Amino acid sequence: MSSAKVVNRFAGGEHYAPLSEIIIRPFLEAIPRIRSLLTGPPHRWTVREVGDGNLNLVFIVKSQGGGVCVKQALPYVRLVGESWPLPLDRAHFEHEALKSETAVVPDLVPEIYHFDAGLAVIVMELLEPHIILRKGLIRGQRYPKLAGDIARFAAETLFSTSDLAVTARTKKEHMAIFCLNTELCRITEDLVFTDPYRVAELNRWTKPQLDDIAAKFRNDAELKVAVQELKWMFLSRAEALLHGDLHTGSIMVTPDETRVIDPEFAVYGPIGFDVGAFMANLLLAYFAQAGHATPGDDRKAFQGWILETLEAFWTGFERRFLALWRTKNRGDAFTTGLFTDAAGTQALEAYRTATLARIFQDSVGFAGAKMARRILGLAHVEDLESITDPDRRAACELRALDLARTLMVNRAGITSVHQLRTAAEAIRTG
Amino acid sequence: MSSAKVVNRFAGGEHYAPLSEIIIRPFLEAIPRIRSLLTGPPHRWTVREVGDGNLNLVFIVKSQGGGVCVKQALPYVRLVGESWPLPLDRAHFEHEALKSETAVVPDLVPEIYHFDAGLAVIVMELLEPHIILRKGLIRGQRYPKLAGDIARFAAETLFSTSDLAVTARTKKEHMAIFCLNTELCRITEDLVFTDPYRVAELNRWTKPQLDDIAAKFRNDAELKVAVQELKWMFLSRAEALLHGDLHTGSIMVTPDETRVIDPEFAVYGPIGFDVGAFMANLLLAYFAQAGHATPGDDRKAFQGWILETLEAFWTGFERRFLALWRTKNRGDAFTTGLFTDAAGTQALEAYRTATLARIFQDSVGFAGAKMARRILGLAHVEDLESITDPDRRAACELRALDLARTLMVNRAGITSVHQLRTAAEAIRTG
Repeated sequence: MSSAKVVNRFAGGEHYAPLSEIIIRPFLEAIPRIRSLLTGPPHRWTVREVGDGNLNLVFIVKSQGGGVCVKQALPYVRLVGESWPLPLDRAHFEHEALKSETAVVPDLVPEIYHFDAGLAVIVMELLEPHIILRKGLIRGQRYPKLAGDIARFAAETLFSTSDLAVTARTKKEHMAIFCLNTELCRITEDLVFTDPYRVAELNRWTKPQLDDIAAKFRNDAELKVAVQELKWMFLSRAEALLHGDLHTGSIMVTPDETRVIDPEFAVYGPIGFDVGAFMANLLLAYFAQAGHATPGDDRKAFQGWILETLEAFWTGFERRFLALWRTKNRGDAFTTGLFTDAAGTQALEAYRTATLARIFQDSVGFAGAKMARRILGLAHVEDLESITDPDRRAACELRALDLARTLMVNRAGITSVHQLRTAAEAIRTG
Repeated sequence: MSSAKVVNRFAGGEHYAPLSEIIIRPFLEAIPRIRSLLTGPPHRWTVREVGDGNLNLVFIVKSQGGGVCVKQALPYVRLVGESWPLPLDRAHFEHEALKSETAVVPDLVPEIYHFDAGLAVIVMELLEPHIILRKGLIRGQRYPKLAGDIARFAAETLFSTSDLAVTARTKKEHMAIFCLNTELCRITEDLVFTDPYRVAELNRWTKPQLDDIAAKFRNDAELKVAVQELKWMFLSRAEALLHGDLHTGSIMVTPDETRVIDPEFAVYGPIGFDVGAFMANLLLAYFAQAGHATPGDDRKAFQGWILETLEAFWTGFERRFLALWRTKNRGDAFTTGLFTDAAGTQALEAYRTATLARIFQDSVGFAGAKMARRILGLAHVEDLESITDPDRRAACELRALDLARTLMVNRAGITSVHQLRTAAEAIRTG
């Protein structure tokens, strides 16, 4: 790994030090905005470090009157340790991405209270009683607003940063910022698109049950071409500012509310990458249900709900993206005013439909890549990891890998979300 | 137009002033490297301003011992006047692009002697007795090395800046530089992809002969969707660092030598944009020949030579790009080592071939857009403008527009350069 020092250009100064439950108090006390949110004397505040992600420290600080969430980048990958340095300036990119998301979906992201570049800290809204969506899905909890909210999040954030919405100058100047978020993107490039398809030290999977399929993936030429093509798309198609890590662990929910957190992997890339990430994680949750079934709850109804959510998500995304394109096309792509007569209106509408079909196809491919990396690569998902019986877990994982391969290799053949649903069901029922 | 002042971030400081034949002498005299190239006292040097392009001042300075070429950006579009301001920092982008080209094809670009950011000046090798290729083609002059040289220029510069050749980090950091070259890119976006398809003040064409076809283009829904799709590709597909203006006026030649100049429009974009630009200008030269025919020279043989050059260019580009991919694939796309067995080698090679076919298709589309804008938009080409009889010129232009439309709308149907040649010949012979 390259030295983290080199790329701490925008956050993490000389005075950087990891926060602790002690020094976080005077740090927060000195920020007027925070002082108005946290009541009473600092020594009465409760401070808990709750970071369970792979990369950061996360503190929840509460006073009687209110609380805040404090997220601080660490100079290494928390999941791996100090041997894998990681630049602190990801806090800068996360802050920039949060600002961009806030501009269009303020109700679907945490409010930002304060950004400290030197400490690589973002102080933001404390989301309570929200839980991580992934944990809810493991419990079999339904979220009726989820599909619609994430459809809106994806459509609004992706459309608003695309060439359809903004001038080339606005987009390129914004893109120049995120071009420098190279270290976190490299994690995506390596861990999603490359390592699962070669012998790599960091890979892990359920052994020995998945040894054969892991070897098969490493020797599957057609699959490797498909996943490398997806990687090249990720590297070169700057269609919109991506969240970059839109899985069910980056979403916090209550039955009534949805919030998307953690956009530190943000980069300009293909729209299908974000859309596919959410699809992939719903599909992983779907295949994991068999591992969570109990005599009292076979989880079949919940599996059906997950697939309905998948369908509603895509349908909602497509509808909203098209609506935005029809009404807010102020960018340099498909210049407004060129298609005003009847023939023009019709031709443009046909092109819009074809574009969404193309985005769906891209999303299907990226979904496959995102599923496989969670089973054969470094970073796994709790949906599957929490299935303690390895045979039972492996059975779920094999089905997920079966679909993942199909999605990557045969993405051109899956042309509707209904077809995607049917493919998932066919594999689950064997 | 936006104020030029805002975007002079990298060139054109407080002390900027246009050079004159007088002040250029002490300016050059003060640069040690130049002093070693120009012999004798400065007052004995000859200075000629020769800029005949659309944007800049160009001085040729000669001493008895040698000469240099001095190119300075002006704060407005020379073709239009001070009413259209243009940022001086295009000199910075040109310099950065020249450095990048020099790294792989030093023999095909002018040597850079000196860059002065404050004055927006590049001092470079004086190309003598080279002439602008376009002028040579108007005279019916053949250049046997041209196809091979431009094929090599395009393949080497485009491959070397693509994700196939360099790591994501190297590419994205380089891309961050060119993301800020927004004002010149905007000229491309407006003048190539938009204005010819709408009523725009700056449009001009041979009147009244082309009035009908110009109106037809403005009302052709299928064509407008095709050209706007190409524009969106130009805006969002960051495949490689483009020259950005690779026409026959940006190439200087002798019968033995080829040099590519003027990369101030450089930006990361689709590979087919550069390839298509050169194809387009060969095709414009081809259709213009009928206007230069004389009783003694019907130009038929020369037309044949132009189309042979077109074929040899594409064939040479494809061959070299593939060879580079096979031997210098050190980037993050198609990670080396994933395709070492027989099945992998074969699958990858099939993918390479398919990719070049896709690049050809993109190139064909961009070629169509580049042809049409030179006939219906602001900036025309001398190939056609020098045909003084307007009826004769219009006849050439109508044929070129006929092909241009086909290339944009039907680019998926033109799958080989031979087919492209045949399409051009069929239109010429009526």
